[in-house]
Amino acid sequence: MSLIIVGSLALDTIEAPTGSVAEVPGGSSSYCSIAASYFTHPNIVGVVGNDFPDSVVTLFKDHQINLEGMTVEEGKTFRWGGRYADNFDDRTTLFTELNVFETFNPILPAVYKNAAYVLLANIHPVLQHHVLDQLEVESFVVLDTMNLWIDTALDDLLTLIKRVNMLVINDEEARMLTQERNYKKAASKLHAMGPEWVVIKKGQHGALLFHDDQIFSVPGLVLDEVKDPTGAGDTFVGALIGYLDQSKDHSFDNMKLAVVFGSVLASFCVQDFSVDGITYLEESDLEARYDEFVIISQF
Amino acid sequence: MSLIIVGSLALDTIEAPTGSVAEVPGGSSSYCSIAASYFTHPNIVGVVGNDFPDSVVTLFKDHQINLEGMTVEEGKTFRWGGRYADNFDDRTTLFTELNVFETFNPILPAVYKNAAYVLLANIHPVLQHHVLDQLEVESFVVLDTMNLWIDTALDDLLTLIKRVNMLVINDEEARMLTQERNYKKAASKLHAMGPEWVVIKKGQHGALLFHDDQIFSVPGLVLDEVKDPTGAGDTFVGALIGYLDQSKDHSFDNMKLAVVFGSVLASFCVQDFSVDGITYLEESDLEARYDEFVIISQF
Repeated sequence: MSLIIVGSLALDTIEAPTGSVAEVPGGSSSYCSIAASYFTHPNIVGVVGNDFPDSVVTLFKDHQINLEGMTVEEGKTFRWGGRYADNFDDRTTLFTELNVFETFNPILPAVYKNAAYVLLANIHPVLQHHVLDQLEVESFVVLDTMNLWIDTALDDLLTLIKRVNMLVINDEEARMLTQERNYKKAASKLHAMGPEWVVIKKGQHGALLFHDDQIFSVPGLVLDEVKDPTGAGDTFVGALIGYLDQSKDHSFDNMKLAVVFGSVLASFCVQDFSVDGITYLEESDLEARYDEFVIISQF
Repeated sequence: MSLIIVGSLALDTIEAPTGSVAEVPGGSSSYCSIAASYFTHPNIVGVVGNDFPDSVVTLFKDHQINLEGMTVEEGKTFRWGGRYADNFDDRTTLFTELNVFETFNPILPAVYKNAAYVLLANIHPVLQHHVLDQLEVESFVVLDTMNLWIDTALDDLLTLIKRVNMLVINDEEARMLTQERNYKKAASKLHAMGPEWVVIKKGQHGALLFHDDQIFSVPGLVLDEVKDPTGAGDTFVGALIGYLDQSKDHSFDNMKLAVVFGSVLASFCVQDFSVDGITYLEESDLEARYDEFVIISQF
């Protein structure tokens, strides 16, 4: 087993200045696994209700995502609704209906327990701990989290951070966790918490990769329009670990490429609603977008 | 005559979380010309009072800055005081004493009128117009401005922007001028106002260079500490035009390097108070810092 992804599977309703959509594929795992699918065959662990649309299952299968770890339970799928303010400055949660996700307990199928790569996509840290407890090999573990868990489950999160190889968070979360606004000092404190790799995402300003004394800055691509930023962070980390699983090379130079491909997929993600920007992409699409990153940043 | 720089010469008093300094060299021209001096011999136009310290004149001369266009008038030098909030989130102006600068009327010495490069550093747009009126050749003109002039002298600024080759502003100013938060749309509107080159500075997130359909993103360097951000923008544009004057190459590839060297000098600037971070640097200092930009951004 190469890569497993554990996170949420949801149906989202999104209101944005650029339009609105209802009951569309969402949740961290959807974005992560589709993004990773361009580099490897991801295996997901998650739960949906028996109302989960066949069309989304087909979409996952089309992207060669292994659904052996996805259980279908009696009841409704997790639903989330959010509204973006003008200019996407702010996002308000309109509703959160956990439904079958409320009692989600990630159980790894036996063949998942020797995964070389594990992506703990954004869910409660206690569930993320539980995933790690089931692993039978020394996996390379990437952790994504969010401000909610820093606020409400800090102790669980801190013990979890100790157990992972790479922490991926945004700049606001880095500040919350470290009380540092200086990126270098924040990364240094995050390293001290455990992970030897730290990625700080800066939204449209790109992302920073830290390892030992090395730093890499990937720019944000300058896009004509952002339609829906939902899932951009999940997409970034999904593509990143997908690229790692494909290359199995933990050199700093290769990690840079993983971060660039994370940014490539995230740039597609924000150009359309839900996962629409990252589905059914051709290799030539990815190559062309990668070239745009080269052109904008290489001198 | 190669490069002329027209801007303010001041004595600054700065209060920051990192310390305080009083009556230190400041004003847009001081930063611009010292930064440019690493690439060419800049010629400044400006005014100071007869209290202007000899030590600063010596500093300028040590950096081979031509002071023929600097007039010394009876009275006091322009003084500015500012205080930075914790984390440098905000800057408050404590006082502005224009003194001899109040009646500043930039008169170009005859030999300045055929300058190949002109930097209109941050002063009132009417004065900047007046400089352009005196030129006798088709100079390459770079314009720096600030939010104050967008608020108080917009008409003069807009007719000025039509007359320049490159506009350098920060992201907030770009938004004020164009009502666009999207960098690509903002740059497109700024191009439509006149300048074929547009640079949008993003503070610690670096800067974006726009020309035709080409975009280049230079990262911000991830520094251990910022001591005083005063003059970083002036330093950036000073080094940029200094590099252009040295290379006389307006290809996009060379403009990228000009922007990188602008960032190199700006990164030194913020590491110390006033101009202290950018004085008496060795070529090897610049090369080492340039290498840091290569390492952080090239993949």
